[in-house]
Amino acid sequence: MAAMTTSRKPWEHAKSGGSEHDELAARFVESLSYDTRLYKHDIVGSIAHARMLCHVKLITEEDLAAIEKGLSEIQDEIEAAGVTGWGGWQIELEDVHMCIEAALIEKIGEPGKKLHTGRSRNDQVATDLVRWLHVDAYTAIWQGIKGTQNAMLDLCEQQGDIVMPSYTHLQRAQPVVLGGELIAWVTALGHCEERLMELATFHGSPLGSGAIAGSSLPLDRLYVYNTMWRGEDEPPCEDLSDEMVFCLTGSSIEATASRDRALDFVYALSMTAMWLSRWAEQWIIYMTSEFGFLTIGDAYTTGSSMMPQKRNPDMLELIRGRCGNVYGHLMALLTICKGLTVGYNRDLQEDKRPKRSYVSSCWGGWG
Amino acid sequence: MAAMTTSRKPWEHAKSGGSEHDELAARFVESLSYDTRLYKHDIVGSIAHARMLCHVKLITEEDLAAIEKGLSEIQDEIEAAGVTGWGGWQIELEDVHMCIEAALIEKIGEPGKKLHTGRSRNDQVATDLVRWLHVDAYTAIWQGIKGTQNAMLDLCEQQGDIVMPSYTHLQRAQPVVLGGELIAWVTALGHCEERLMELATFHGSPLGSGAIAGSSLPLDRLYVYNTMWRGEDEPPCEDLSDEMVFCLTGSSIEATASRDRALDFVYALSMTAMWLSRWAEQWIIYMTSEFGFLTIGDAYTTGSSMMPQKRNPDMLELIRGRCGNVYGHLMALLTICKGLTVGYNRDLQEDKRPKRSYVSSCWGGWG
Amino acid sequence: MAAMTTSRKPWEHAKSGGSEHDELAARFVESLSYDTRLYKHDIVGSIAHARMLCHVKLITEEDLAAIEKGLSEIQDEIEAAGVTGWGGWQIELEDVHMCIEAALIEKIGEPGKKLHTGRSRNDQVATDLVRWLHVDAYTAIWQGIKGTQNAMLDLCEQQGDIVMPSYTHLQRAQPVVLGGELIAWVTALGHCEERLMELATFHGSPLGSGAIAGSSLPLDRLYVYNTMWRGEDEPPCEDLSDEMVFCLTGSSIEATASRDRALDFVYALSMTAMWLSRWAEQWIIYMTSEFGFLTIGDAYTTGSSMMPQKRNPDMLELIRGRCGNVYGHLMALLTICKGLTVGYNRDLQEDKRPKRSYVSSCWGGWG
Amino acid sequence: MAAMTTSRKPWEHAKSGGSEHDELAARFVESLSYDTRLYKHDIVGSIAHARMLCHVKLITEEDLAAIEKGLSEIQDEIEAAGVTGWGGWQIELEDVHMCIEAALIEKIGEPGKKLHTGRSRNDQVATDLVRWLHVDAYTAIWQGIKGTQNAMLDLCEQQGDIVMPSYTHLQRAQPVVLGGELIAWVTALGHCEERLMELATFHGSPLGSGAIAGSSLPLDRLYVYNTMWRGEDEPPCEDLSDEMVFCLTGSSIEATASRDRALDFVYALSMTAMWLSRWAEQWIIYMTSEFGFLTIGDAYTTGSSMMPQKRNPDMLELIRGRCGNVYGHLMALLTICKGLTVGYNRDLQEDKRPKRSYVSSCWGGWG
Repeated sequence: MAAMTTSRKPWEHAKSGGSEHDELAARFVESLSYDTRLYKHDIVGSIAHARMLCHVKLITEEDLAAIEKGLSEIQDEIEAAGVTGWGGWQIELEDVHMCIEAALIEKIGEPGKKLHTGRSRNDQVATDLVRWLHVDAYTAIWQGIKGTQNAMLDLCEQQGDIVMPSYTHLQRAQPVVLGGELIAWVTALGHCEERLMELATFHGSPLGSGAIAGSSLPLDRLYVYNTMWRGEDEPPCEDLSDEMVFCLTGSSIEATASRDRALDFVYALSMTAMWLSRWAEQWIIYMTSEFGFLTIGDAYTTGSSMMPQKRNPDMLELIRGRCGNVYGHLMALLTICKGLTVGYNRDLQEDKRPKRSYVSSCWGGWG
Repeated sequence: MAAMTTSRKPWEHAKSGGSEHDELAARFVESLSYDTRLYKHDIVGSIAHARMLCHVKLITEEDLAAIEKGLSEIQDEIEAAGVTGWGGWQIELEDVHMCIEAALIEKIGEPGKKLHTGRSRNDQVATDLVRWLHVDAYTAIWQGIKGTQNAMLDLCEQQGDIVMPSYTHLQRAQPVVLGGELIAWVTALGHCEERLMELATFHGSPLGSGAIAGSSLPLDRLYVYNTMWRGEDEPPCEDLSDEMVFCLTGSSIEATASRDRALDFVYALSMTAMWLSRWAEQWIIYMTSEFGFLTIGDAYTTGSSMMPQKRNPDMLELIRGRCGNVYGHLMALLTICKGLTVGYNRDLQEDKRPKRSYVSSCWGGWG
Repeated sequence: MAAMTTSRKPWEHAKSGGSEHDELAARFVESLSYDTRLYKHDIVGSIAHARMLCHVKLITEEDLAAIEKGLSEIQDEIEAAGVTGWGGWQIELEDVHMCIEAALIEKIGEPGKKLHTGRSRNDQVATDLVRWLHVDAYTAIWQGIKGTQNAMLDLCEQQGDIVMPSYTHLQRAQPVVLGGELIAWVTALGHCEERLMELATFHGSPLGSGAIAGSSLPLDRLYVYNTMWRGEDEPPCEDLSDEMVFCLTGSSIEATASRDRALDFVYALSMTAMWLSRWAEQWIIYMTSEFGFLTIGDAYTTGSSMMPQKRNPDMLELIRGRCGNVYGHLMALLTICKGLTVGYNRDLQEDKRPKRSYVSSCWGGWG
Repeated sequence: MAAMTTSRKPWEHAKSGGSEHDELAARFVESLSYDTRLYKHDIVGSIAHARMLCHVKLITEEDLAAIEKGLSEIQDEIEAAGVTGWGGWQIELEDVHMCIEAALIEKIGEPGKKLHTGRSRNDQVATDLVRWLHVDAYTAIWQGIKGTQNAMLDLCEQQGDIVMPSYTHLQRAQPVVLGGELIAWVTALGHCEERLMELATFHGSPLGSGAIAGSSLPLDRLYVYNTMWRGEDEPPCEDLSDEMVFCLTGSSIEATASRDRALDFVYALSMTAMWLSRWAEQWIIYMTSEFGFLTIGDAYTTGSSMMPQKRNPDMLELIRGRCGNVYGHLMALLTICKGLTVGYNRDLQEDKRPKRSYVSSCWGGWG
């Protein structure tokens, strides 16, 4: 019926002949501005995949050695340059996967091209995301929760037997001790932690799903799994039915179309942010001169240019306000997934954009 | 500073002298229009509480017998009248708890008044909600998921080896068999089911939390727990540390202020609705004359008054659209809880309003 | 590929031979449980449409007279029975439009059938919705806002010069008079009112759009517009370009696919609910014994069974909490519309479900 | 009751003696990482404020000249360095306002300190935000909408009379011409444009509101308004009642507490994103090989590494998916404002975080 344009070459091959319009399109679709932080997991996944390809004789030992050496050098270069400073990120190559692969091919030539055997960016990004969640995200949030609980328990130990009113409807109810209220927050945060721990019990490996329908090559998914998720001193898993829900019952179509694990994480984060907003609100009220239950040291409050005597609980207010951002991320991901056909659609790329600020939204430098 | 009004009697005592203004206020705060469906769980909780009160000698055996008989008669009356038709719902009494208690007192007199010993509506409603979720809600959704999976597996068995294209970006990708795509939906729904099963492993009993700070009476919370959650032929739980996270580590302040279990449920429902919306979208596309993969029998499509040849997949469209309502319920509850001080605030009453349509939103008469 | 079932008759013809399965399907798709409140607007639209059909000679004067008389009787019957009590609502007929049309045909025979000429349920429901918003919804909310503003202005007049602290970060800032704070709420609510007034300036008539692509019949859309939206003593609009954005620039495809006016309304409502939640929060804090700025009469607070001295600001808490429900409705409608193809899809039926509680969420019996 | 810490100096004075803990707190509260793009509007507002201070004799002509020269040099420096590259951004100074003010004082000494007379960061940021919306944001979105409409109208002119099916329920309905469907999108986007135009009719100036309660100095708010919003060749507004809703009826408490204009904008953006998601979905379906209505040139599609014949409509998919991000921003801001007391609370700082991607979410380099 209508062609939006016909004259251009696909930009993924077109480092060379880019025109102005290609530029705009390339900038519109790229995810490099927010997915480079996955680089470490991308490399781990590539090494596991390469070892498996060698194990099933699809590449040679020499190929594998070249790939491992090349990827290891690339990782060193990225870390030396600082993640965003690395010269290998090229917007025409769209994403972290293509940039690293292109750098590898440039570095080691032919063996680098074999890495893509039996793999698609669709199962690759699903793998990177799962690893990022397990290795980086859960840990960061968990430490934040633990740190907050410990600070409250310390306070409990020091001043926990001070008597204060409890409140329902913000009206004074039965007297309690300060420790009683602190334990309420610790308990609620404990449930937040449990949600994360439930998420962390699952180690699934989407690699092998290919673009959507797997591969006709004799890939050994269990071998990949063991390489990626088992420590060097742990025995390999030999029977999939022991632990891996995904590998046995899973579907390559579902695996490349799903962002359930990201959603479960953002929901767990939303609940954490919700409880932190409640705590912040309570302490903001306690810190009013009318309640007067609480003072916060000058280093953690701000002053006013017009009213120098004031001490404002800005950090608590920001904790309360950032709850909104986390809810917003949840609503964003839910909306993105609503009514989406299977398998992979490019909409799913957007799952990584909000996550840039997940951790910082909640804990940003204050644990 | 300012009194909104001073001349009225509190409506909770005022079955008698209601004026027009009291009427409006009573209608504004009542929850009877959506919480009467909790009646069964309210009665179960009251019986468990009464048995415990008797067990610790706070009421006599005779009191207990009268209470059990009275509550049992009330339950029969409610079920005979149809839940909403029962004459005991009185808007001035605000909620399901007060109405049933008032009816009990009217029926058995003095012993009925003792039921409130060591209990508040705050821990009572938290208990009712947990039981409603466990006994009614999870089961209904679970059966819906199972029914859908089974229907897909049946179809898989009958026609699963038909070859069809798979799609990424809605463009034809590798060929698959129909069974492959059906298993994708079954797998995704399986993860939805797992979320519900995780929720269902927890049996916590908020009774004993009182209004916020527990009670100075010698209540036996474990006894209540065993009475409510253990089957008659199950051995009672003797050591709390075996199973009950809540009772050991919990806080009465947190227990009356939290709606985490309702939120976890609505999130699990949102994920289910999300996957159903994806499936519905896919089949709506497959049912177009352009794709032509699928026809749906006349009983499950609708026609058009202007174009009689058309068969429209209205049921699939409604499944897709209702996803919006479920997301809306999640956002509502998250918003209600944001920045709320502990313990109980009346805002929390609103947690029951959206749930009226949770089950029907997803499965409303179609399994 | 696969037929979900083939044996049933379409339920829209099947008042007679419904089986159990038809029953479930009928209950799944029906909207009668929430769209009957549109009956008045449906009848107004039908009369306007019939007058136009007569005006352009598609039906006779006698037909028109019979239709008007029949619809008028139906309206009387509905109002005599109470909206939900009318006997004409039949679940197999799905919605308010079909039920009223069927009742008309039963009552007046052949002329009743002609009413559907050049009309589809798709433009009919769009018309009903626009009228419900303009005639019922805006007015109700507007009165609520005005009533709240007036109550605040009254208080301002009586006690506006009481000196009190203002607060930033909930810390005492410069002193102000009570009137100053009250005017802040009045101002914010004024912006809420402006949003509604902007919506109310538009009178568009979707009738004539048909199912999606208009009609080849010589319908006179301006005549319908004048009949529906002009008062009897107002001169008819003669030139569409004077006022009707929709009729001149509109598209029948857009008109039947859009729910923009419902969304604009729910957004306006969300902003109103947001400001009410802020005001409620502020006064809840002012009503604490620690602040002590405010008391609320017993008729508008609730007591506590365990702590009889307490007066709880439940109404303010509910106003604050119901903000969540309104946000939820906004998110629901936005989600429903996301990624929906044009024109009418049955998903859009869900736009009416949340609205059942829009008005009551905000003002439910308390103005 | 409890002091979180007592030993630190407030970081706003503490460029000098920062310890590790101050660092973390400073990083937690800073907004420089997302508010520096307001620099131009901050400087315009400061110049207008300075001119007014001179006009009412609160500062001298010499002071004004020094301030104007200093601010102009700072603007040149920022633009020479690229916004984020300027050396004056210091995290201890928290935000764009303080950094520019500090740089001014360093540059011109005493007169620079007078700029803060009768002004607070609370009314300053409200002013910056309003100007950013009016000058930058509306225009960018408006151009995006216009560009899209024009592209559709061009296509309409070239190929608008091609006959195609229309669709309801995604089933073929009456035949239409391509132009008919294109006009549906143009119409819907027209309503999106109208929402922006309504927003753009308002020019309100919060300056003069101070921290919350205005100022006892003889500030001339109309003079500021004329300086900021009137072109050099436009006559000044002499009577506030002619045009400025805010200045006459507004309240300084509301002005510093409100983010209504940001919310109205994000809502207008959500509606735009919603319609773009619908159009994208429709064209993705039209571009399937099964429908085959549409091809998109290679420069605007992507290929597949595993299936080289495929052309995927990634740009349309991203347009559809980014709708989720915009909805998320709306939900974030609504949540932030829910239940917030007046006047300024630091939560409001978060209003600027999501906006970083508003424009790019919708049009990011592709108009």
